[in-house]
Amino acid sequence: MSPDAKKVDDRPHVVVLGAGFGGLTAAKALASVPVRVTVLDRTNHHTFQPLLYQVATAGLSASEIAQPIRGILGAHRNTTVLMAEASGVDLDARRVHLVGGDSVDWDYLIVACGAETSYFGHDDWRSVAPGLKSVEDALVIRERVLEAFEHAENEAVTEHRGDPLSFVVIGGGPTGVELAGAVAELAKRVIQRDFRGIDPSKARVRLIEAGPRILPSFAPDLSERAVAQLGQLGVEVLTGARVTGIEPGIVQLEHDRIECSVVLWAAGVAANPLTSRLGVAVDRGGRVLVERDLSIPGHPRAFVIGDAARLDGPDGKPLPGLSPVAMQQARTVAKSIRGALEGKPAVVFSYVDKGQLATIGRVRAIAQLARVHLSGFVAWMTWLLVHIFYLIGFKNRIVVMVVWAWSYLTYRRGSRLIVSRRSIEDVERTAASAEPSAR
Amino acid sequence: MSPDAKKVDDRPHVVVLGAGFGGLTAAKALASVPVRVTVLDRTNHHTFQPLLYQVATAGLSASEIAQPIRGILGAHRNTTVLMAEASGVDLDARRVHLVGGDSVDWDYLIVACGAETSYFGHDDWRSVAPGLKSVEDALVIRERVLEAFEHAENEAVTEHRGDPLSFVVIGGGPTGVELAGAVAELAKRVIQRDFRGIDPSKARVRLIEAGPRILPSFAPDLSERAVAQLGQLGVEVLTGARVTGIEPGIVQLEHDRIECSVVLWAAGVAANPLTSRLGVAVDRGGRVLVERDLSIPGHPRAFVIGDAARLDGPDGKPLPGLSPVAMQQARTVAKSIRGALEGKPAVVFSYVDKGQLATIGRVRAIAQLARVHLSGFVAWMTWLLVHIFYLIGFKNRIVVMVVWAWSYLTYRRGSRLIVSRRSIEDVERTAASAEPSAR
Repeated sequence: MSPDAKKVDDRPHVVVLGAGFGGLTAAKALASVPVRVTVLDRTNHHTFQPLLYQVATAGLSASEIAQPIRGILGAHRNTTVLMAEASGVDLDARRVHLVGGDSVDWDYLIVACGAETSYFGHDDWRSVAPGLKSVEDALVIRERVLEAFEHAENEAVTEHRGDPLSFVVIGGGPTGVELAGAVAELAKRVIQRDFRGIDPSKARVRLIEAGPRILPSFAPDLSERAVAQLGQLGVEVLTGARVTGIEPGIVQLEHDRIECSVVLWAAGVAANPLTSRLGVAVDRGGRVLVERDLSIPGHPRAFVIGDAARLDGPDGKPLPGLSPVAMQQARTVAKSIRGALEGKPAVVFSYVDKGQLATIGRVRAIAQLARVHLSGFVAWMTWLLVHIFYLIGFKNRIVVMVVWAWSYLTYRRGSRLIVSRRSIEDVERTAASAEPSAR
Repeated sequence: MSPDAKKVDDRPHVVVLGAGFGGLTAAKALASVPVRVTVLDRTNHHTFQPLLYQVATAGLSASEIAQPIRGILGAHRNTTVLMAEASGVDLDARRVHLVGGDSVDWDYLIVACGAETSYFGHDDWRSVAPGLKSVEDALVIRERVLEAFEHAENEAVTEHRGDPLSFVVIGGGPTGVELAGAVAELAKRVIQRDFRGIDPSKARVRLIEAGPRILPSFAPDLSERAVAQLGQLGVEVLTGARVTGIEPGIVQLEHDRIECSVVLWAAGVAANPLTSRLGVAVDRGGRVLVERDLSIPGHPRAFVIGDAARLDGPDGKPLPGLSPVAMQQARTVAKSIRGALEGKPAVVFSYVDKGQLATIGRVRAIAQLARVHLSGFVAWMTWLLVHIFYLIGFKNRIVVMVVWAWSYLTYRRGSRLIVSRRSIEDVERTAASAEPSAR
């Protein structure tokens, strides 16, 4: 900001990088603090990531789980939202550099830029096996999945041949389990009447996990119950299966080779690469090794929260990449900033673990709430209640609920839309020679 | 189809090109006729075009106005849907050639491939001034409009400068009027609280029409009332203004030059180029000059309906490009095909004009129903009732109604989503070297 602006508003300036669960919670928690807040995000929307798999499998439309950041923070008069991408941070000069050359100065910084899909060095797998971290990712996966059915139907009708459809989901964490369950349900229960040449319910869905069991962050009995529930949906679970190669149509395992129509990747995430450009220590997953108050070592006014931060719990294990962690950390940091203005020391973060949940298809789930282990419909109701509660911040939760109720009652999907990237690219290709006039 | 298939099903084969209002109505009308029907469309969805402008201006999400064709026709067991694009038609050999090399033979053909945006030979304008004929178009326009506000806010906040925002809509037909009204309402009533550096309500919206009045297909008094209602929303209407050039940021008129942030094109359509490859006579707009029974001259088993057909009404003027025309024509052709199986002659088409409607913003409209001319809220209620009636074929009309009610009550927009084409293209660029495994 220019010196002139400082004169106009001399409240300390808090810059928040990212409008995920962590960044939004921080901005909201700072609404009553005498600071001005600027939230930067490369998109214009907050994504409700726990439901991304529903967008990817055509159960919900993108706008039902993504909300304009401006809309969410519009009432906070001390908060400015910028749709901009940070290219780097100068921790000493207290400045964020933006793609395009502009910069923003800060008095306090909250890095909440989250994680993205990681292929563990195999970046060539990305194009064949898309991951699921953003709305764009979800639309890419939806297109792959729906086009596989369309392609098979075309072959069956015009050429009277049909290779059996087969889907492979790599990675047995919650995202992989949710994706595999939802794809199986889509094929076997939702669209099975819509085709003439193929029988979508014959599609194979395989979930591949390198470790000895799926959902390793849950207790072993819940992993077993998840396998059983996936089996009810027709998902085959392969554990101890390490992927060594992915090419179009083929997933190569150490001792096997799987032919498939579509491969989806849910096997790994790493922190947003911005963290590696901070010039401070990060772990193998790119997460910043923060102090107990979530500040960057040596930079007490710069904090990192959520999936971008590495902090070990009392058990010595890193805190999980879950939204409750990010949101609790956001509130702690907001408290520290409020305190700093009053000369108080920073607050040490302490995670309150309320449990974890994973859904499996439409009415199945597992839930681990302290010592209580739930599965099946009861777990799913728990999952639903938790998400309704979370969605309360969402203005159109009423719509999401209606869509769900409708889908639940009719077993139909409302969002089976393939928005052709090809056509959009045609427009873009032409546009390349003439920049949009808005720029 | 191969000879084998003929043995299995020797009912006459009707191929329908396009799943717009005409194509879908034809397929539905043929459900009880002893034929088998194949509907081809290059997308997997039917688009409810009258509400496209709502998607373009962030009032509705794409899946609320677009429905999977398979879902709509799933219950018709004599109908097969193929997501495929026709590259050409051999009228003598009775064969449709598909992009990709496959082909489909037909006994009866219904060409219902609709219209697309036309720039009257100025194809270089396309990239600067997008048109509105498809879901993809609507998403491109939405992105342009929303990014213009984001860009202006960024400039205002980080550089303390701000050029006034200005939107130009070219073409004063119903689409142009609807777009201009909706853009004005978005800027002045929906998002005006969401920005800190700019005041969106100061954005200028201009509607440019080459002819002497907007909405020339309506009676002159209704054109005047539309201008008045647009004025209430802050839209400036320029008539008699012929566009001679469009470049990024500039619309050149014969005697004036307008600087603007975003230009939208609603000034012309032409039939899908497939019609020009049929080898039969077309008019200047590419529409096939059909017989009174909608057949192609010399090809009594091939019909053209809707925006792809040119047929003059009793007044000597071409029938308008409206969905009722296409749907009535579809039913006439279905009747002719049913009759042909019984040895009856083809049915001559006769258009029953039930009037026309155009909306202006949220609660304004004009309606011309025979001699009854309505405007304002009463016309808007009429418009709403007509569209609810039409939407009855839509499974999720309940959702659309909830969204509308919600938006009406709160003056908020639920779909202000910019789904970055840039990110999607990144994926695609990587994918270019490795074809998706589904292929």
